[in-house]
Amino acid sequence: MEQQNIGMIDVGAKEVTRREAHATARVVVGPELVARIRENRIPKGNILEFARVAGIMAAKNTGNAIPLCHPLPLEKAAVDFDLLDDAVRITTVVCATAKTGVEMEALSAAAAAALSIYDMCKMFSKAIEIQDLMLLEKSGGKSGDYKRR
Amino acid sequence: MEQQNIGMIDVGAKEVTRREAHATARVVVGPELVARIRENRIPKGNILEFARVAGIMAAKNTGNAIPLCHPLPLEKAAVDFDLLDDAVRITTVVCATAKTGVEMEALSAAAAAALSIYDMCKMFSKAIEIQDLMLLEKSGGKSGDYKRR
Amino acid sequence: MEQQNIGMIDVGAKEVTRREAHATARVVVGPELVARIRENRIPKGNILEFARVAGIMAAKNTGNAIPLCHPLPLEKAAVDFDLLDDAVRITTVVCATAKTGVEMEALSAAAAAALSIYDMCKMFSKAIEIQDLMLLEKSGGKSGDYKRR
Amino acid sequence: MEQQNIGMIDVGAKEVTRREAHATARVVVGPELVARIRENRIPKGNILEFARVAGIMAAKNTGNAIPLCHPLPLEKAAVDFDLLDDAVRITTVVCATAKTGVEMEALSAAAAAALSIYDMCKMFSKAIEIQDLMLLEKSGGKSGDYKRR
Amino acid sequence: MEQQNIGMIDVGAKEVTRREAHATARVVVGPELVARIRENRIPKGNILEFARVAGIMAAKNTGNAIPLCHPLPLEKAAVDFDLLDDAVRITTVVCATAKTGVEMEALSAAAAAALSIYDMCKMFSKAIEIQDLMLLEKSGGKSGDYKRR
Amino acid sequence: MEQQNIGMIDVGAKEVTRREAHATARVVVGPELVARIRENRIPKGNILEFARVAGIMAAKNTGNAIPLCHPLPLEKAAVDFDLLDDAVRITTVVCATAKTGVEMEALSAAAAAALSIYDMCKMFSKAIEIQDLMLLEKSGGKSGDYKRR
Repeated sequence: MEQQNIGMIDVGAKEVTRREAHATARVVVGPELVARIRENRIPKGNILEFARVAGIMAAKNTGNAIPLCHPLPLEKAAVDFDLLDDAVRITTVVCATAKTGVEMEALSAAAAAALSIYDMCKMFSKAIEIQDLMLLEKSGGKSGDYKRR
Repeated sequence: MEQQNIGMIDVGAKEVTRREAHATARVVVGPELVARIRENRIPKGNILEFARVAGIMAAKNTGNAIPLCHPLPLEKAAVDFDLLDDAVRITTVVCATAKTGVEMEALSAAAAAALSIYDMCKMFSKAIEIQDLMLLEKSGGKSGDYKRR
Repeated sequence: MEQQNIGMIDVGAKEVTRREAHATARVVVGPELVARIRENRIPKGNILEFARVAGIMAAKNTGNAIPLCHPLPLEKAAVDFDLLDDAVRITTVVCATAKTGVEMEALSAAAAAALSIYDMCKMFSKAIEIQDLMLLEKSGGKSGDYKRR
Repeated sequence: MEQQNIGMIDVGAKEVTRREAHATARVVVGPELVARIRENRIPKGNILEFARVAGIMAAKNTGNAIPLCHPLPLEKAAVDFDLLDDAVRITTVVCATAKTGVEMEALSAAAAAALSIYDMCKMFSKAIEIQDLMLLEKSGGKSGDYKRR
Repeated sequence: MEQQNIGMIDVGAKEVTRREAHATARVVVGPELVARIRENRIPKGNILEFARVAGIMAAKNTGNAIPLCHPLPLEKAAVDFDLLDDAVRITTVVCATAKTGVEMEALSAAAAAALSIYDMCKMFSKAIEIQDLMLLEKSGGKSGDYKRR
Repeated sequence: MEQQNIGMIDVGAKEVTRREAHATARVVVGPELVARIRENRIPKGNILEFARVAGIMAAKNTGNAIPLCHPLPLEKAAVDFDLLDDAVRITTVVCATAKTGVEMEALSAAAAAALSIYDMCKMFSKAIEIQDLMLLEKSGGKSGDYKRR
């Protein structure tokens, strides 16, 4: 009745190589909230540090949150922020030595950091948008390197 | 040395009311992948059903993933999809009877569903983008109703 | 394209009542392993206490493990064991005051306890079977009481 | 007072080999519910796809749910279904390259898929039974291959 | 064979009241590391903000981590720090409106914050000690208020 | 604006070696509760077995609970107890073959076991203290062996 053997595909025969992925997202909060964040005037706490931890923990939890992601022993997970005129730009880096890539881990970190910023700013605005959640570059593995133009 | 009493703010004195939030996200996969999804020709499985489950489970896990979110007893969590010309549009609805709103739960569901679609499509393209992850509307609570224009 | 509004159904309008569910499972390990368990001669530790904790924790985690289960604030979760001739019988009881029932919590507890027993016995036999994982009785809620004959 | 050194046993000296395990379970729902599932007439959604995701995620979560299971980097986890006259038969396959086997992961996947089917069918019947949750076969590791007769 | 009905005890008949608990812990890192923390010269990041998030998240996860703890809908969870001569003192506050108290949540938050500080300082010293992890005060519930002398 | 590349540091270039860590904690419950525990007269259940499971599971969950801890494939996790005159002493051992050490896993196990004992004893006393949560010894890795004097 059903196609058989459906689920998390077998990566057993893939080569163990060093994998690295960089992802990004932009939380469009408007210039007033950017100023508040820059001056650390969000009453709930140090918003960027909280978002950073949320991102790092989401990277480690990716295999539990995305149905077909293989659990991977992450070797690095970093989350950084740039304050733009009307937005916070998030950049994440994740590394592992594994049989499959860490793109989803880098993207999950960016998404969780973005959602945390949203959460701490939503008392000021409900019009916040998360944009450009995407892969910046990756390396390692058979499919080769990728760099977004 | 430090400002005291920092963390998840006290919602104890807030009123218990019915809360509802709708969120959305758009996964820009390109027209070819939209066709593949429409015809269920992604080899990894039924991509939209998998993304739906990921979204529902992320809604329920929001309090564990976002540092300052209060854990809430969700009464409803639904995730729907529309196939656009070059993208999948995700729409989520979350409800609870609680002292604080469910915006973050609806947004987390949309983000996780988007990331799952990304994961299942990334073998075909690394240029996929997640855009317009945002609140559509909310009701309940003291801050009143909101509807994105 | 898709039926809309699919996911964890809305229980918001349901009545909050006291809910109780009893479930069971039988782990058929054979008479020799029953004797080992009775005399606490499984080298890995106190097998029934470990299984009990696994069951209680699984009851509390049900909303995170079963896609369409509503997260519920459990008020009680107990796991008991009877040693039969060739099997361990597990009985679980779960209670909550909630808008929906706790059948899945009681069943999840029984399943996790059974799997834990299996895990600690599998060094002695790979032929172990888990049978009769099912609801014994439930009370509370609009659908009324149920008792397995 | 206590025997010392009790807990998850040391597998450090075991050999890293490719491990595979197949498990099964049967959810006895009765012929009417089998027909409903075949025709996708369960109002809650695509029941088998939801159960599949629950099973895959449970496989990945086994180390967190079963007290003495070692956490393993799964390389594959698949869940399939056959509709029998009065039941849904679940078959799971899990693989890893590791120092210990993946039997518990395959069994956990079957249990979670079975519980999810139960959950989505319980509005129609409380008499559903989960039977024959057991290992079908395993390979890899010092204890050798096993195939249920 | 076994005493029956063992597990998370039934709190169904208890009164829903506002509960509050304060806990503390002291991480004895020595005067040099206190100076480093004060001047934010730990290379791994903003150590106290990271520890704060770990503590808040642990408070929310208490029901999943401590076998017999009832899951509670926390209304507040805050983690604060004082730099002593040779130690970091952690103070936590947790609140809920519930049938059982939040002592374990406040203690879990203090423990997780202490362990996070330990983790970020352990590159400088392996002799760090966590001391005086204990309840400071609690209110709400039938057993009455408590304040450590 | 921010120092870049902050988060879980890169252990990719570190050597994979066998790691072992022993940690301890002391739960000061007073002589009466020590007697109750010795005679298994705590009504909630077998307190030391429950605490043991909590400790083992916390060891496995360390990477999800401590922000900058790398997730590690644990090969062993054991939790033992000694009854002192006025306290329960917990000793934990954790092992892995990995690029980074398991100190935090051993400490997390001791903390969770201590908190579980606290939880099951708190109906008798609110003055319980957790003391001396600290590393006993570690081996493996570039920083060499350590043994607390």
